[in-house]
Order: sequence, then structure tokens, then C-alpha cells
Amino acid sequence: MILRSHLGDCRWEKTPVLAYKQDGTTSFRDITKQILFEGAQMDFQWRYFEVAPGGYSSLERHEHEHAVMIVRGAGRVLLGDAVHAIKLYDLILVPSMTWHQFQPTGDAPLGFLCIVNAQRDRPQLPTAADLTTLRANADVATFIRI
Amino acid sequence: MILRSHLGDCRWEKTPVLAYKQDGTTSFRDITKQILFEGAQMDFQWRYFEVAPGGYSSLERHEHEHAVMIVRGAGRVLLGDAVHAIKLYDLILVPSMTWHQFQPTGDAPLGFLCIVNAQRDRPQLPTAADLTTLRANADVATFIRI
Repeated sequence: MILRSHLGDCRWEKTPVLAYKQDGTTSFRDITKQILFEGAQMDFQWRYFEVAPGGYSSLERHEHEHAVMIVRGAGRVLLGDAVHAIKLYDLILVPSMTWHQFQPTGDAPLGFLCIVNAQRDRPQLPTAADLTTLRANADVATFIRI
Repeated sequence: MILRSHLGDCRWEKTPVLAYKQDGTTSFRDITKQILFEGAQMDFQWRYFEVAPGGYSSLERHEHEHAVMIVRGAGRVLLGDAVHAIKLYDLILVPSMTWHQFQPTGDAPLGFLCIVNAQRDRPQLPTAADLTTLRANADVATFIRI
């Protein structure tokens, strides 16, 4: 496993395409996950997520940070109380306890690398009160999917 | 700094292009480094390295692992006692205490993402005895640059 060839379209040898979330408690659509690197000696986990057109990642926040690079397509991301356009190779830091959600634009998938600490807290989902606060911003209200 | 746009050719907003090594004790040529993500809350450092045509990274090994993805060009990499061809988006694990060196092929730069633990040991350079052992393999002898 020292070398895994890229097979095209962000699929790799010996790297299964997984369900995005296993627990079934969060809301998301048309998104897959591949674990590119993890291991006992690694203090991080390197993942690739891909959101199909019309899909979205779960709206969530957590103590741990996300380090993200877009590697396929383009889209928009909610970070806190603002929605940003994101394109190929842009870098995104999702700070601690910041609401975030990724969505593709157009009819191509949005794919991104996401590095996290191996030891990290579980994501938190928005309460009804959190959603009310988020939706007080018109841009955010229009953007978010749950 | 939550969003840094890609400016083209693997350069990013607010992300300086740095000297590859600061200490001057290792042998390398025509290679730059950009730190894409690091921080007090991150247990990892995410770097981008770029080797110009004719250049090479230092021939070294260390206890910590490298998790690597090629994102620009193509090349070859020494991993232990074998030289492998590498192309766009290939994934490479450099295992603990494994001699490695990256070189581009052709006349385009080789650029790669490299994630390491924030806490890690310093690289070791080959001794004369190590080089003799490495060069016992004809492919390796032809490949390595020091």
C-alpha cells in the first residue's frame, strides 16, 4: 500500500468508496467518502469527500478543525454566518465550532480533501434554536439544506 | 484566513513560497515548500512541495511517515530499495525509516501534497555505508542524486 495509483475521476486503487456517515442521524444527500490515509503512527486522517450535483454535506460543527482543499469541481461553502464560492485548489480552514456545509454548483461533482486530527470530537447538529439563528441571515437561510 | 484562493499553478493567497530546508546540511536542488495548514489545534502539518525540472528532494529517512498526493506533473520516487513512476493524483505512503527521494520527469515541475505529524523526528541523511547499500541496487544507483 505504499503506492496507490489514481484510476481517474478521484478514485484510487485499494481505496473503497464509503458511505458518508454511518450513524443515520444527520441529514445529507449524494455524498461519498474515501479514506486516503490513516494509521497507528499518523496523528491525522486524510479523507476525500465527493458531493454529487444536488447533494450536500451535513450542516454541523465541532471542536476540531477541518483543513480542506477542493480537488474536483466547484461549489459553495457555509462557514459560520457567510456563504463563500469555492473553486479548484482553493484552501478552506473550518475553524473550531463553526457551522459548515459544502454544496456543489452546476452539474459536476464537488470533491475535496479534508484532513482532521485522528483524535477528535463528534460533530454537533443544529438545534431548532441554532437554525433560527442561522436563518436570521438571508444568504444563509437560502443556502442551507437539512 | 478561513479561505485562501488558488491563484493558479499551485500558488495560493497569503501562502508564501519558502526555502525547502533551512539548515543547509542536506543536498537538494530546485525545490520549494509552502505550508498550507498548520496550527496549535492541528496535530498535523499540511505542506506543498514543488521540484523544478532537473531538481530533487533530499535523500533521507525518518521515524515519522509521509502521506503524499501528487497534484502537479509526474515523476519518480525512491521508496526503500525501489524506484516507482508517479503521476497526477497518485497516493504515496513513505513508511517509517524508509529512504526516499522525489524527482520530476520531463520538463514540467513535480508538485505534491505532503502531510506529516506536527510532532515528529528530524530527517536522517545517508552515511557512506548507507549509500553503498543503496547503490548495490542498479536502479537505485542510477536514480539517486546527492
